Amino acid sequence: MPMTLKRTVFFVSDGTGLTVEALGHSLLTQFEDVEFKQIRIPFLDNIEKAQEAVARINHQGETDGMRPIVFTTLVNPELAEIVHQADAFCLSYFETFLAPLEGELGRKSNHTVGRSHGSAESSEYKNRIESINYTLAHDDGITDRDLEEADVILVAVSRCGKTPTSLYLAMQFGLKAANFPLIPEDFDRGRLPGTLEKHRSKLFGLTIQPERLAQIREERRAGSRYASLANCRFEVAEAEKMMRREGIRWLDSSTKSIEEISTTILQELKLR
Amino acid sequence: MPMTLKRTVFFVSDGTGLTVEALGHSLLTQFEDVEFKQIRIPFLDNIEKAQEAVARINHQGETDGMRPIVFTTLVNPELAEIVHQADAFCLSYFETFLAPLEGELGRKSNHTVGRSHGSAESSEYKNRIESINYTLAHDDGITDRDLEEADVILVAVSRCGKTPTSLYLAMQFGLKAANFPLIPEDFDRGRLPGTLEKHRSKLFGLTIQPERLAQIREERRAGSRYASLANCRFEVAEAEKMMRREGIRWLDSSTKSIEEISTTILQELKLR
Repeated sequence: MPMTLKRTVFFVSDGTGLTVEALGHSLLTQFEDVEFKQIRIPFLDNIEKAQEAVARINHQGETDGMRPIVFTTLVNPELAEIVHQADAFCLSYFETFLAPLEGELGRKSNHTVGRSHGSAESSEYKNRIESINYTLAHDDGITDRDLEEADVILVAVSRCGKTPTSLYLAMQFGLKAANFPLIPEDFDRGRLPGTLEKHRSKLFGLTIQPERLAQIREERRAGSRYASLANCRFEVAEAEKMMRREGIRWLDSSTKSIEEISTTILQELKLR
Repeated sequence: MPMTLKRTVFFVSDGTGLTVEALGHSLLTQFEDVEFKQIRIPFLDNIEKAQEAVARINHQGETDGMRPIVFTTLVNPELAEIVHQADAFCLSYFETFLAPLEGELGRKSNHTVGRSHGSAESSEYKNRIESINYTLAHDDGITDRDLEEADVILVAVSRCGKTPTSLYLAMQFGLKAANFPLIPEDFDRGRLPGTLEKHRSKLFGLTIQPERLAQIREERRAGSRYASLANCRFEVAEAEKMMRREGIRWLDSSTKSIEEISTTILQELKLR
């Protein structure tokens, strides 16, 4: 068995660094027996900050007794050159991919600092913020007003992940996501809540393994009938029966992250 | 002036594809005079889906009369090989960076499908969901209970972006982010709300240009005193005076995205 290796990794960007961090992280997860200390250096947009970053990286290398790994996305070639002088193993996202892409497109790139999250003044950004507000105002069946504006309406029994998923859809994709709980009254009546019927094409259901649901509910209301396994089994079975009868697409959220659930919803409802 | 060039871009991943899309997007923004049609193909995790993707990419190329650009993150070499047979310009994130990283670390990678957003069963993921719930329960000064659990407490006058920023901090970084409005009563009293004083080290302020604030408020309550420029100027000036006096760090959110605001807050409060 090899000893656990420890390495320090820097993510250096002229923007927030969130993209290069996500990217680097997905590579690092491929090395399970290495322990990575990860440091993000955002907003590196002048020579002074570039020199500070080099000093910090070199100092870390001396402390570690091993050169750090540095992932960069720096659009400005002058700043990139300074950072790449650090005594480190540098993987440069822009230098690696921009030249081949320029070749393929037959165009020179702008070399302007990217705002991959969109400028705060862009209509796309404003739409995201508006969608977050809409989603908050339409959480958990608070209101059935303005449902015609919704891009998607999630339905599920309580504690399946409707709220975090709705917020993610709004925040990441700028979608207006309402959500409604399926409650025992709906099962007694054997029908969807009336206000939802006319929006059937926007409905998407979440379900969950009853054991997992009981565990989640138990953390909130220990010992309650609401959290009991018998009741969770009943509610999940009734909800699935209703969704099947009404022709609502759904997925099991038990082991899925909100990113995975949201991506699946986009695919299934052919949104975007 | 060159004609506007149109190209189709695919983002192909065995996971959600969100990371490779963000990445590709940051490169594409470097080519302002090219119009990109962007298509994400997520969850490509078997041979059949890989062959379908190739057919789709080739078909698009025939329609466009120009080969598509394909960004991939595919951990499975067999699937990557199939996709890379498409008649397209392929930029492979894993193939490009994994080998050099293996060399630097002196270890082989696992070649397991990455879950860069964290498994839904991991403690990190559960913490994110718990933070979203905490943040929703502590939005807009709803309650001052459990503030000792907060990682950060945002303060600002109404409509500076407290809520979307708090939610982003929770969703992206798993931080418990409470937020409190600064209201005219606080300015009259000339002091922070009492419950916040003992949490001063967690406080972070947002401010905004009064003109921008008036515009945002006008959209919500047209013609109101609340939205008037005079009132917005007064509130912003009072809020900044209070934050200065109380030694609260703050930033101007007028032209910043929630990603940029959140990244700055993390830096300033030395969180993570």
